Amino acid sequence: MRMYDIISAKKQGLELSEEEISFFVRGFTNGEIPKYQMSALLMAICLQGMTSKETMILTKEMAKSGDIVDLSVIKGKKVDKHSTGGVGDKTTLIISAIVASLGVPIAKMSGRGLGHTGGTIDKLESIPGFKISFSQKEFIDIVNKVGICISGQSGNLAPADKKIYALRDVTATVDSIPLIASSIMSKKIAAGADNIVLDVKTGSGAFMKTLEGSIDLAKAMVDIGESVGRRMVALVTDMDTPLGYAIGNTLEILEVIDVLNGKGPKDLIDICIELATEMLYVSDKGSLEECKALAKESLESGKAFSKFLEMVESQGGDVSYITNTDKFEKSNVCYELKSNKSGYISKMDVEGIGIASCILGAGREFEGEEIDYSSGIVLNKKTGDTVKEGDILAFLHTSSLEKAKSAEEKILSSLEFSNEKPNEQPIIYARVDKDNIIRY
Amino acid sequence: MRMYDIISAKKQGLELSEEEISFFVRGFTNGEIPKYQMSALLMAICLQGMTSKETMILTKEMAKSGDIVDLSVIKGKKVDKHSTGGVGDKTTLIISAIVASLGVPIAKMSGRGLGHTGGTIDKLESIPGFKISFSQKEFIDIVNKVGICISGQSGNLAPADKKIYALRDVTATVDSIPLIASSIMSKKIAAGADNIVLDVKTGSGAFMKTLEGSIDLAKAMVDIGESVGRRMVALVTDMDTPLGYAIGNTLEILEVIDVLNGKGPKDLIDICIELATEMLYVSDKGSLEECKALAKESLESGKAFSKFLEMVESQGGDVSYITNTDKFEKSNVCYELKSNKSGYISKMDVEGIGIASCILGAGREFEGEEIDYSSGIVLNKKTGDTVKEGDILAFLHTSSLEKAKSAEEKILSSLEFSNEKPNEQPIIYARVDKDNIIRY
Repeated sequence: MRMYDIISAKKQGLELSEEEISFFVRGFTNGEIPKYQMSALLMAICLQGMTSKETMILTKEMAKSGDIVDLSVIKGKKVDKHSTGGVGDKTTLIISAIVASLGVPIAKMSGRGLGHTGGTIDKLESIPGFKISFSQKEFIDIVNKVGICISGQSGNLAPADKKIYALRDVTATVDSIPLIASSIMSKKIAAGADNIVLDVKTGSGAFMKTLEGSIDLAKAMVDIGESVGRRMVALVTDMDTPLGYAIGNTLEILEVIDVLNGKGPKDLIDICIELATEMLYVSDKGSLEECKALAKESLESGKAFSKFLEMVESQGGDVSYITNTDKFEKSNVCYELKSNKSGYISKMDVEGIGIASCILGAGREFEGEEIDYSSGIVLNKKTGDTVKEGDILAFLHTSSLEKAKSAEEKILSSLEFSNEKPNEQPIIYARVDKDNIIRY
Repeated sequence: MRMYDIISAKKQGLELSEEEISFFVRGFTNGEIPKYQMSALLMAICLQGMTSKETMILTKEMAKSGDIVDLSVIKGKKVDKHSTGGVGDKTTLIISAIVASLGVPIAKMSGRGLGHTGGTIDKLESIPGFKISFSQKEFIDIVNKVGICISGQSGNLAPADKKIYALRDVTATVDSIPLIASSIMSKKIAAGADNIVLDVKTGSGAFMKTLEGSIDLAKAMVDIGESVGRRMVALVTDMDTPLGYAIGNTLEILEVIDVLNGKGPKDLIDICIELATEMLYVSDKGSLEECKALAKESLESGKAFSKFLEMVESQGGDVSYITNTDKFEKSNVCYELKSNKSGYISKMDVEGIGIASCILGAGREFEGEEIDYSSGIVLNKKTGDTVKEGDILAFLHTSSLEKAKSAEEKILSSLEFSNEKPNEQPIIYARVDKDNIIRY
């Protein structure tokens, strides 16, 4: 078998066989196939596509390129949730607490932020003492005891995906549905959960900017998961506006604590209830309505907050910060960003706002960069709000005025204003499972 | 400017600007742009195409990446001819002699064979003493004195094309009309001739297997040449059957001498007259009919043969071999390949026959390999001929019986037989100039 012939076949739009896909995944991972051949193949895949059969095979080959986590010693069916990444997306922290409080085990690996999107692990690490690294045994013991553990990526999960993704990132071959779907699902399958709920973002802050593209991606991932025996649901949710008001690690933890205490913004609460409902549903906790009632009750009764405290404690975090949030370190500068215009905010370029948050110190441009936990943005106005010139649009938390000024410019250029109130946008656009695609 | 954005733009099917094309040609040639980005761009070009404006810019950028030969000190308008490569294609040697005998200067660089196609320089070097390497001054002096000189590629012509072609060759990105057209034309433009006749092969032994693809390629190259002030004509000619009967270096020289002496196969003579006619026509030697009459007269009168002898002598070749062909060294083995079937030969896989000739020692798989000048194939039967089982299909000239046996197998599997006589195929399918595409 020759890589040349595989590239040539895909260039002609032919379906690749299992042997061919296995050949290039293994060959590229072990260094036998050079980058310049792999990038030509990736571009051919971007432009000619892959059948769902090819996408499933690619996913399985990438998943088995490294460790496959075995969670079978944890009692019960484990449920995982994955978001395709957004700005201000702190849902994992809230819904994991809700779901675990209802007896469904959460044994989750999460990632760090990169570029304009944040990461759950960075957010958790802003709690003093919080540990994200465990041995396999410690991890399993915590889940069996507390019902939840959120760790960083450990072991060698889907190294083929890691290597291929690094090449896609520099060859403009990221935005291909089969490649995105197989990349995400190879890691999720290797991470070992039985059932998976996907939060596929759509809009200006998402990977996929169009609704139909997002639905196609959701469907591709659901089909892959079902083909390897996972129960899958995907919600396609809005990322045309940041989720909630807080962007940045400590700032988002504060908002999470608000929500778990019955406060917090409606958009964030609503999406958390919907996602938690789906996680309970795939875990056989009842009908969708029953699961929704359970989720709401957990949040409103404080059960979810108790579970969150338990999780923080079991992972070494200082619980006193959660019960007394004044203890969190504050940034040197809290800059009031004032509007230079009047009218309704008609549009937010969420990617631009995510980049502004990076400028303030809350994110990283390159893997491994240090971040400043206390920095970030607390929005005061969002899409649909009316604003007068001079009104505060946001509070910018950062270490220097220069950074604040630079982020101010980026944020102002990310906003559009109009004289008329824009139409309200739904939070959930579609629900995709193995049988149906329901558009709302 | 970033290579990433250029790849992304082409992936989306956008037209690249002059600055962008110049950026990637220079950057890749000087090593700043890595192969893996270039191969992704090349695949995007294969699948999304290039406009004729982009193709022209790419050609010019590759041409100016190295030396541009200045032939202005040679009197008169210089004419060049280029073939896209075939099996048994010895036309350059015949038509150059015809055209030069009529006073049109030929200052030509030719290439070596690679893979299943042969090269003019290898054929000429089978004449003992024949030199193909000259200083610029020697080259010009010979053309000014004799009216013709055929040298190997010297200097640093279109190094960008050389580097890009090497990458295309291993990434399945060869068969793209804009890339083939710009590759050929960048070298032709750098080689300095005023007017150019192209012989674009079509069929099983050609780069382009389909007639419409070949016509599109011809049109693209004619347009590029005209855009930089060259007078251009392209003939699209048959390569579904080897040209003439001889394949292999010395064997082809013997067939050339036959043709120049008024013998030789009709298909070869016809195509040589047509190509010589076009070369004379772009050199303003009269109407097409007048040019054809001149070409025929040169061949029939022996003028072309005299010019060939003059060329061989001026380039150091031993003329006594040309006048007494018995002097040429013969191969150890001359194997009679007999048919295992009866019927009409309905189809020849010309690429397969070219590969058989390589097996016999006449060609090379990799650049720089030694070749065996005396080896090759002399066909005894071609498409349309009737054959009885046991009839001689070809004579295989080589150094060992093993090679002959291995080539026999390849040739037999390259032939198809039928009970009915196949339709006769034209030798010339189309003529393309800047104004017209005429299909025959």
